[in-house]
Amino acid sequence: MEGDPISSLCTPALVVDINIVKKNAERMIERFKNLGVQLRPHMKTHKTIECADIMTGGSRRCIVVSTLAEACFYADHGFEDILYAYSVPFDKVEHCAALSERLDLFQVLLDHSDALEQLKKRPLQEGRLWHVWLKLDCGNGRAGVLHSGPESLKLAQAIHAAEGVELTGIYAHCGNTYNCKGVEQIQVVAQETTTLTLQFMERLKTVGITCKSSIGSTPSCSHPVKDMAQLSEVHPGNFVFYDVQQITIGSCSLEDVAVRVLTRVIGHSPHRNQLLIDCGWTGLSLDGGGKLPSGYAVVEGHPALKLLSMTQEHGRLEPISGKLDYSKYPLGTMLKLIPYHSCATAVMHPTYYVHSNDRLVGKWTPTRGW
Amino acid sequence: MEGDPISSLCTPALVVDINIVKKNAERMIERFKNLGVQLRPHMKTHKTIECADIMTGGSRRCIVVSTLAEACFYADHGFEDILYAYSVPFDKVEHCAALSERLDLFQVLLDHSDALEQLKKRPLQEGRLWHVWLKLDCGNGRAGVLHSGPESLKLAQAIHAAEGVELTGIYAHCGNTYNCKGVEQIQVVAQETTTLTLQFMERLKTVGITCKSSIGSTPSCSHPVKDMAQLSEVHPGNFVFYDVQQITIGSCSLEDVAVRVLTRVIGHSPHRNQLLIDCGWTGLSLDGGGKLPSGYAVVEGHPALKLLSMTQEHGRLEPISGKLDYSKYPLGTMLKLIPYHSCATAVMHPTYYVHSNDRLVGKWTPTRGW
Repeated sequence: MEGDPISSLCTPALVVDINIVKKNAERMIERFKNLGVQLRPHMKTHKTIECADIMTGGSRRCIVVSTLAEACFYADHGFEDILYAYSVPFDKVEHCAALSERLDLFQVLLDHSDALEQLKKRPLQEGRLWHVWLKLDCGNGRAGVLHSGPESLKLAQAIHAAEGVELTGIYAHCGNTYNCKGVEQIQVVAQETTTLTLQFMERLKTVGITCKSSIGSTPSCSHPVKDMAQLSEVHPGNFVFYDVQQITIGSCSLEDVAVRVLTRVIGHSPHRNQLLIDCGWTGLSLDGGGKLPSGYAVVEGHPALKLLSMTQEHGRLEPISGKLDYSKYPLGTMLKLIPYHSCATAVMHPTYYVHSNDRLVGKWTPTRGW
Repeated sequence: MEGDPISSLCTPALVVDINIVKKNAERMIERFKNLGVQLRPHMKTHKTIECADIMTGGSRRCIVVSTLAEACFYADHGFEDILYAYSVPFDKVEHCAALSERLDLFQVLLDHSDALEQLKKRPLQEGRLWHVWLKLDCGNGRAGVLHSGPESLKLAQAIHAAEGVELTGIYAHCGNTYNCKGVEQIQVVAQETTTLTLQFMERLKTVGITCKSSIGSTPSCSHPVKDMAQLSEVHPGNFVFYDVQQITIGSCSLEDVAVRVLTRVIGHSPHRNQLLIDCGWTGLSLDGGGKLPSGYAVVEGHPALKLLSMTQEHGRLEPISGKLDYSKYPLGTMLKLIPYHSCATAVMHPTYYVHSNDRLVGKWTPTRGW
């Protein structure tokens, strides 16, 4: 397979441009090295060993994961300093304890005092400490204790005071940058999250607590504001692949998007002015809801086509206006879809086909499940 | 694990009620035995050996699949008489030829003369024939040559006349039953598809061609019209699991739905009147677009809760009205989500946990990819 053109692949197939991946990773590493902030890249987008190697510059240290399955997968492959940045689920406390006792550094996250009680009920062996990040909601509106008010400080103090537990850091995810359009809006949210996090660090200091701080999201880390230099860490993930959503937000340009779904024309429907392709939602996901001008994805090099709808294994393409010229799209024609959301698309694929200049150089196998 | 309660599972987890699966399968088998029509169940919903055994009554014969990966998976496990009901993709002709030469009976489908040319270019060894179904579009509006007009008859004749090729049957999918509400509307579409298919069979007879006929979809086969007894085969698939979408259409009742996604409460967000659960779109899919009154799924036993939104590993629940009583949902509480579309949800899970009366009886491993 190696050396073959990507056009030889059976479709649908997720292809990853290794040169773009490396460029995206190196640029992010360089950016935060210059700011003096530790980059802790998120693995959730790709969930592979090979891409993790690239994102950590080969160190296999200092990563963040979204599932316990990822944590175990990376631990099994010699990765260290893993942060499971997910409100510690009660059914997985024992698994987390085992990883904490096995690795040099495994870190968890919580946002509720009941979760702290769960950890205290399971002291680690050999005097090891639970390394705990407190999740703060700085306006993102998902997990996290509200940054303002007494609850957040009280919980931080409780973690700090708990026996067998260390308050390692304060963690905020600015996923609300995903509602932005353009660098200016991104930086408003990045500034806000940074400011609120740093203010919380100040509140901690007044009660005698110091620890790390981390914020993240691909948009904010693609266009960091100066004050982010005062943080200990950042934790973006999607940037290694990017996607149409990130272009729309303003995080990147088309040439930064490292992934495509290859698909082929498998049907002509002249009675509906449509083409059928062999990529449905099992190959692309339904993320984005088809709201792009070009529908569920962008068809590279064919700006006049819209991916109107998908079922399990079929996609329906139609021209944005006018009549389809079927002679341009004979059955078997390969098209390249640029995904709306690469995290959602990647998760649908058991194998990623890696290429350099359209020649295959390898395959990556992601981990799955929880 | 066997014998343990499903409440012992780590979440998110897809659980399958084996008794409901068996009941759904037996009822469909019985229904079409009584009508004198061959049931060719579709495997796309579950893609497992165990469920295929149940759906074929243990015969391991006469199934339909949506991907070549499924075809190979079932062939490798001793299944026979497999119909790959997908407009034969040009990149997979050689694979299809290999299966046709290896199995007693492997069947393909097409809707374009160029696809027929592809098959003719690859004659099968040892005098074997390509067994070809012609896909007809009877109003569904996805794959298929339009039932009316000269093209469809011309293509059927060309398949029939081609050397090394047999016109095995005429295949129509009435996926447009998915737009129906209630048995009456379902039966209007079922009748229409049946009538148009049977009319096409009559047109074939006038030019001296007889072959099989098949229509399908879970709604139509859950409420067949009498004329369907004149068909050779039917090919529903989803019915073995059913889901909220099928309840909404009118195909089934809540007690017929065999699958749930188990999830746990992992966060309280009193500042937003929301709960967080450990099931995002990696555990449920985005199918349905959140348009149910209860959002992206139904929370079993909690009709006042709405699954408002999901990200990769988080779901946000909120009350349909009023204030959340958090004391009812302590962290760690297990909830059961009834999926909107079981095909889309099942595809997200590398393992299905099978239970009888909430006690685990086994695990099923589906095939994936294409």
